[in-house]
Amino acid sequence: MKLLLINGANLNMLGMREPDKYGKTTLKEIETKVISRGKMLGVTVDVFQSNHEGDIVDKIQKLAKEGYDGLMINAGGFTHTSIVIRDAIAAANILAVEIHMTNIHAREEFRHHSYLSSVCIGQVVGFKEMSYILALEGLVDYLKTKKA
Amino acid sequence: MKLLLINGANLNMLGMREPDKYGKTTLKEIETKVISRGKMLGVTVDVFQSNHEGDIVDKIQKLAKEGYDGLMINAGGFTHTSIVIRDAIAAANILAVEIHMTNIHAREEFRHHSYLSSVCIGQVVGFKEMSYILALEGLVDYLKTKKA
Amino acid sequence: MKLLLINGANLNMLGMREPDKYGKTTLKEIETKVISRGKMLGVTVDVFQSNHEGDIVDKIQKLAKEGYDGLMINAGGFTHTSIVIRDAIAAANILAVEIHMTNIHAREEFRHHSYLSSVCIGQVVGFKEMSYILALEGLVDYLKTKKA
Amino acid sequence: MKLLLINGANLNMLGMREPDKYGKTTLKEIETKVISRGKMLGVTVDVFQSNHEGDIVDKIQKLAKEGYDGLMINAGGFTHTSIVIRDAIAAANILAVEIHMTNIHAREEFRHHSYLSSVCIGQVVGFKEMSYILALEGLVDYLKTKKA
Amino acid sequence: MKLLLINGANLNMLGMREPDKYGKTTLKEIETKVISRGKMLGVTVDVFQSNHEGDIVDKIQKLAKEGYDGLMINAGGFTHTSIVIRDAIAAANILAVEIHMTNIHAREEFRHHSYLSSVCIGQVVGFKEMSYILALEGLVDYLKTKKA
Amino acid sequence: MKLLLINGANLNMLGMREPDKYGKTTLKEIETKVISRGKMLGVTVDVFQSNHEGDIVDKIQKLAKEGYDGLMINAGGFTHTSIVIRDAIAAANILAVEIHMTNIHAREEFRHHSYLSSVCIGQVVGFKEMSYILALEGLVDYLKTKKA
Amino acid sequence: MKLLLINGANLNMLGMREPDKYGKTTLKEIETKVISRGKMLGVTVDVFQSNHEGDIVDKIQKLAKEGYDGLMINAGGFTHTSIVIRDAIAAANILAVEIHMTNIHAREEFRHHSYLSSVCIGQVVGFKEMSYILALEGLVDYLKTKKA
Amino acid sequence: MKLLLINGANLNMLGMREPDKYGKTTLKEIETKVISRGKMLGVTVDVFQSNHEGDIVDKIQKLAKEGYDGLMINAGGFTHTSIVIRDAIAAANILAVEIHMTNIHAREEFRHHSYLSSVCIGQVVGFKEMSYILALEGLVDYLKTKKA
Amino acid sequence: MKLLLINGANLNMLGMREPDKYGKTTLKEIETKVISRGKMLGVTVDVFQSNHEGDIVDKIQKLAKEGYDGLMINAGGFTHTSIVIRDAIAAANILAVEIHMTNIHAREEFRHHSYLSSVCIGQVVGFKEMSYILALEGLVDYLKTKKA
Amino acid sequence: MKLLLINGANLNMLGMREPDKYGKTTLKEIETKVISRGKMLGVTVDVFQSNHEGDIVDKIQKLAKEGYDGLMINAGGFTHTSIVIRDAIAAANILAVEIHMTNIHAREEFRHHSYLSSVCIGQVVGFKEMSYILALEGLVDYLKTKKA
Amino acid sequence: MKLLLINGANLNMLGMREPDKYGKTTLKEIETKVISRGKMLGVTVDVFQSNHEGDIVDKIQKLAKEGYDGLMINAGGFTHTSIVIRDAIAAANILAVEIHMTNIHAREEFRHHSYLSSVCIGQVVGFKEMSYILALEGLVDYLKTKKA
Amino acid sequence: MKLLLINGANLNMLGMREPDKYGKTTLKEIETKVISRGKMLGVTVDVFQSNHEGDIVDKIQKLAKEGYDGLMINAGGFTHTSIVIRDAIAAANILAVEIHMTNIHAREEFRHHSYLSSVCIGQVVGFKEMSYILALEGLVDYLKTKKA
Repeated sequence: MKLLLINGANLNMLGMREPDKYGKTTLKEIETKVISRGKMLGVTVDVFQSNHEGDIVDKIQKLAKEGYDGLMINAGGFTHTSIVIRDAIAAANILAVEIHMTNIHAREEFRHHSYLSSVCIGQVVGFKEMSYILALEGLVDYLKTKKA
Repeated sequence: MKLLLINGANLNMLGMREPDKYGKTTLKEIETKVISRGKMLGVTVDVFQSNHEGDIVDKIQKLAKEGYDGLMINAGGFTHTSIVIRDAIAAANILAVEIHMTNIHAREEFRHHSYLSSVCIGQVVGFKEMSYILALEGLVDYLKTKKA
Repeated sequence: MKLLLINGANLNMLGMREPDKYGKTTLKEIETKVISRGKMLGVTVDVFQSNHEGDIVDKIQKLAKEGYDGLMINAGGFTHTSIVIRDAIAAANILAVEIHMTNIHAREEFRHHSYLSSVCIGQVVGFKEMSYILALEGLVDYLKTKKA
Repeated sequence: MKLLLINGANLNMLGMREPDKYGKTTLKEIETKVISRGKMLGVTVDVFQSNHEGDIVDKIQKLAKEGYDGLMINAGGFTHTSIVIRDAIAAANILAVEIHMTNIHAREEFRHHSYLSSVCIGQVVGFKEMSYILALEGLVDYLKTKKA
Repeated sequence: MKLLLINGANLNMLGMREPDKYGKTTLKEIETKVISRGKMLGVTVDVFQSNHEGDIVDKIQKLAKEGYDGLMINAGGFTHTSIVIRDAIAAANILAVEIHMTNIHAREEFRHHSYLSSVCIGQVVGFKEMSYILALEGLVDYLKTKKA
Repeated sequence: MKLLLINGANLNMLGMREPDKYGKTTLKEIETKVISRGKMLGVTVDVFQSNHEGDIVDKIQKLAKEGYDGLMINAGGFTHTSIVIRDAIAAANILAVEIHMTNIHAREEFRHHSYLSSVCIGQVVGFKEMSYILALEGLVDYLKTKKA
Repeated sequence: MKLLLINGANLNMLGMREPDKYGKTTLKEIETKVISRGKMLGVTVDVFQSNHEGDIVDKIQKLAKEGYDGLMINAGGFTHTSIVIRDAIAAANILAVEIHMTNIHAREEFRHHSYLSSVCIGQVVGFKEMSYILALEGLVDYLKTKKA
Repeated sequence: MKLLLINGANLNMLGMREPDKYGKTTLKEIETKVISRGKMLGVTVDVFQSNHEGDIVDKIQKLAKEGYDGLMINAGGFTHTSIVIRDAIAAANILAVEIHMTNIHAREEFRHHSYLSSVCIGQVVGFKEMSYILALEGLVDYLKTKKA
Repeated sequence: MKLLLINGANLNMLGMREPDKYGKTTLKEIETKVISRGKMLGVTVDVFQSNHEGDIVDKIQKLAKEGYDGLMINAGGFTHTSIVIRDAIAAANILAVEIHMTNIHAREEFRHHSYLSSVCIGQVVGFKEMSYILALEGLVDYLKTKKA
Repeated sequence: MKLLLINGANLNMLGMREPDKYGKTTLKEIETKVISRGKMLGVTVDVFQSNHEGDIVDKIQKLAKEGYDGLMINAGGFTHTSIVIRDAIAAANILAVEIHMTNIHAREEFRHHSYLSSVCIGQVVGFKEMSYILALEGLVDYLKTKKA
Repeated sequence: MKLLLINGANLNMLGMREPDKYGKTTLKEIETKVISRGKMLGVTVDVFQSNHEGDIVDKIQKLAKEGYDGLMINAGGFTHTSIVIRDAIAAANILAVEIHMTNIHAREEFRHHSYLSSVCIGQVVGFKEMSYILALEGLVDYLKTKKA
Repeated sequence: MKLLLINGANLNMLGMREPDKYGKTTLKEIETKVISRGKMLGVTVDVFQSNHEGDIVDKIQKLAKEGYDGLMINAGGFTHTSIVIRDAIAAANILAVEIHMTNIHAREEFRHHSYLSSVCIGQVVGFKEMSYILALEGLVDYLKTKKA
């Protein structure tokens, strides 16, 4: 089983800015943990980050061809504005889960709505870096149950 | 560490109705799995279910006195209408996580808003019964990180 | 054929308060008329009233086990606020009809929307106590047509 | 006692189109049943159908002069757009009931609001052709109670 | 100078229904007064009434060919729903004034907006039958000022 | 019979600014015409203008004591923002008419709503300076009809 | 193959009013061009125009009986207000295309929404009289593809 | 004179949680003060608290039978969601006053609207525990004035 | 301790107009009662009334310099429209309470929102003239508690 | 005459994904057909596709310099979110037409509004791949008419 | 060149209240700096402050007569509520700039909209007292460019 | 001191298109003026322009590392749609000012809201190219004041 983890705009800055707010863990470290946890679960996890909406769309379009079984995505600010990422996921015909480190429902009004939610199977929201691990476990469980 | 899992209205019917839609697992079985997984993580999990909003408020008010460290709650339909459950959680001054088996963001408009979200640390949404396990792991991780 | 009539909050006060507005007929008398009319149509009608949302949910969950073929419900003020009663009806997988004695569309703005309407087969609104008799006839006719 | 049944736009097509959805009964047959049921109740029922809003207004204006005691109306699509039919009913100073064969509250958003509801005494919604019979019975009961 | 007075749906019932509310003056009498007042001002006033939106559109389209210099219109309930009457007035390229006998701004919310207002030069609202005389005087004055 | 004409903020600038848009007639000249037309109708008309909302409220409060039978008011921009002028009119228990020289319904969205409309008997809108004369005639007619 | 072209309210005035805005081509000329282009494509095109909503509904109801394979409709102002024309098209079970000569999305807010759009296969908007030709070609292509 | 003081959900926790925010006074102490102040004013005050909406409705329905002259209610979170408590108060035909310890208008948006306000004679908001005393004095004064 | 009572627009007319609605007590009499009650509580109460928003702002700005410890304000219609009075209170850095004689939440929609509520510590609403006394007691209690 | 056809995000996947829904024709094939049809009409058509909003803006900015006479654009999901593409078209001062293969008005609510509509001369919506051909014909006709 | 600087309600309190928030600079000092900077730019700057909306309107009406070439205005709280100040500026036919010391877009929702913005040439927002200097420079530059 | 000036989508076309509307000055020339004015103020100004949202985010993320003290940004159309640029500015923890050449508040409704406003210290709007100079001066002043 092979999964992709996509991180959207500004998430490359994790751990380098506002450590009081977002913690000191860098995206690199989070990705490493997810890959490592994936190995324990017997799945390969690849990672991808971009501040460019178009790059994320390009990447999602190649998911099938590159043989991915599932997608984990924290689109950052694109979550609330990007119909094209939504459409790319819908078109990719792949199981996807949405990730947020912070509790978006307790932040500004404009962060309460996600264009991605209804094309994903579920969301993990608010557990900081643990959100990534939980999303991985949830997706793997979902894929295994489906196969069974 | 001691946690409580609360299930709200209609969740007692899980597995007994509409198995095509919600699966054949009963709430009893889900609770057993959560308790079991809790043991593996070294935490005690108690369970509580009610179709009565007032009973849930009563229960939440006793969390501190009964020595709970955290709360996992799937309030069912109360999620979208109950300010008193929200207030009870806020007043309980306890870490809480919100659980939904189905992807509420892909259902009716009136299920998109949750009164509980902003008084919980996070949500796990859409992973069917696995949502409970992930919420447990997330909450335990959060509590451990906090203590550390 | 066996049907249940549920009356929600404040309907137990019928005939005892504000007789100028709601008439002098008590809920008891209405229930008697419905049961009596049921006998003429060859169906058994049981009755239930509660001011407690949770009790109504509990009752609806038992409909199948108790062998009911259909549900008539005047949820009173719960009509406009209760997603859990709605969910209970939807989960019960039973034919239901919604009843209102007064014309809710000619009253306050907040009474115009019903959470129950879309999980019922239809509504009878505004015919005072006669609303109950019409709902009974409509439901019986619907059930007979369906069987035929 | 003399009543009029008005059917609005597109209801003349009943039974002739989409029988899977609306049943095979024609408007003619429904009207015959209502007239027949009226005889049993000791009231005369006349019928009128038009796809023209103006014709319906014209007809309603003549209700008093033509000696009608009550009005039953299924205005079809005009239900949601016609203030002039509403005004005609209000001006006619006659008891009116609103009829819908389908459950308009479970259809498109724009069918949830009715301009006629607040100038009618009540509504019967969703019982297919039985909606007409129930409306007749309800109206006759209302008129008899009022006279008594 | 030649003017047309159009009255829309239900205004033909003036004076014949609800005299307590709308007064005892019939539309016929109002029209006679307007024609008479027109003679005093040296202008010919013709009258037209219909409950049919289409007839009103037809009539407005002929205004230029029939040599009218201005239009007075009380569209009744069509005021709030008819874009086609609005378009007909705009296309007719004629000066128009809007008339209402009652104060529409002190009635139901849905009567506060008029589709005709922005294609008329002005409105006279709330002076009962005198609204017609004032509109006539206002329109004549406007036309004379414009010519001068 | 004695009437007061109140003009609100910025109407003192009429004829002195933007003559292309509002005409060259000054407020003084309009007031003179209204007074003159009043004499022909056998009524005394006094005039008052202020850019101060409080002054207008003060003036309206004295209407009864000063023996006025009616009020004509063009509140200018206060029309859309002043609840205190509305309350003053309502409290004065006097017949009032609202005047606008321009067609407020064809201007900016925020000019479409008037706080004064529902406490006045009617409005005359869009006839430029003639709006004042029509309002006077309408008010006098209303008062005479009422007395008769 | 046989198609009908329906034009709604005020479109009979094309070319006769406001030539600067809508061009000098009359509806007659447009209809002739569409019929002519139809012949080239091997389809018969009939035409129908009315300012009466009810007439358009009547006509659409007869489409099947009169053997039409498709419908082209420019409903004019009815586009934004008529649920009954929408319902008639839906009930007619025929392929329909929506036509607008002007760009309705660049005009007044109330012209941006069409009740017809979701019961038509598509729209051609803003190409002046060419909109009709394009709609014809699109519909014919659609029908041919479907048959093939 | 006999009055009832009802406290809704979560108010039983007063003084036991978040003393920094809500003070150290318990509900018990507040109730004692109100009863004591009642004695000074010559009125008997009984108290009732529940986290169950249905219990509060049940209690309100018995007010007349139990001989109460007035009601003081702090419904807590039910204030913003409960139509059935509102209906119970309206049906009880008793003078009621609404109490809030905190300034609900300076808190979350969803706490600004109260379903109870329009069926109470007034509100006392924001004076912490003193709100109860003021409400008592206001209600007693109101009742005495009314009797006089 | 020294307090100021400000009354806004139209409150100077109390007792002189609409005695059936607002009672026969004049503002003078209310002010006298408040001053008298203040003496009993050991505080000096000064009074101020104006129909001019600017005068009220001027007065509030001087509160600190003139040595006031608290403010009681019934801003009348300004309550719903005046941001400058709100800003003046906020800037004055003084404890303020909001007073309304009538139940503003049971009146027109536009009276439900107050700009002042969130810069005051609380509101007393609906107890007629007693609202003033209660506000005074509440404010004095608040100030004493604070000092203690 | 030289035209550009721009396809936005995800349209490069046409024919390769969800063939049941979007058909088996690839974007390549559609482009070839448009170019071919262009030749028949005597115009050169160039094509451009990108998933990157910025690339589309860059391309549109060069339209004039590269000598294009017109633009055809199917912006995909950018249609509903991109003000910068809108601004680029407006600034390019070139005739543009908007294309959609599916009927966007019969899909999700968020697809009903287009930022591009009001800066294009028209739209062709819902004719699948034929939408492109019709848009081409419409644009060419528009350009020729304008030149003539 | 001669300019006027108007400061609205509560701005006379600058530097005297809440120095932590608004700084210690008084309005007097700001005015002096603006006058001084004006001299350097070769323009005369006069100043005016009032808490009275009417006074500000009076002043703006006299701008032309008093020979001013431009207006700088910080209307304070009137910014969000005053249509009459807006109308006065529009009528004055003078170039105006809007000033705010704080970033109104990062404050309460009701401060985000300004009635003045669309009748001014521009705004300078959020630079504390420097906002005044920048507005002056911007206005002078605008006037000079225009003359050139 | 070192500042960056970012210009977003379409601003590279300044001076080259629609000179009547936006002036003949190119972005190059504006940038030169800002750099030059910066030298006079003793600060270094670098410039950056892109039509790609992602490039702007990338650039803002590097601000700290590249040693910038402040940011000036005219995001063009991204102003109203880009949450990721907003987030990038917030994360960069740098003082930023927002620039608009035209008065966005007097343009289309969708340009009135800016996602950037609340993460900038202020805005300069509507002074054409002078907006850039004023923003520079304001930012420099702000930085100097802060350091002092």
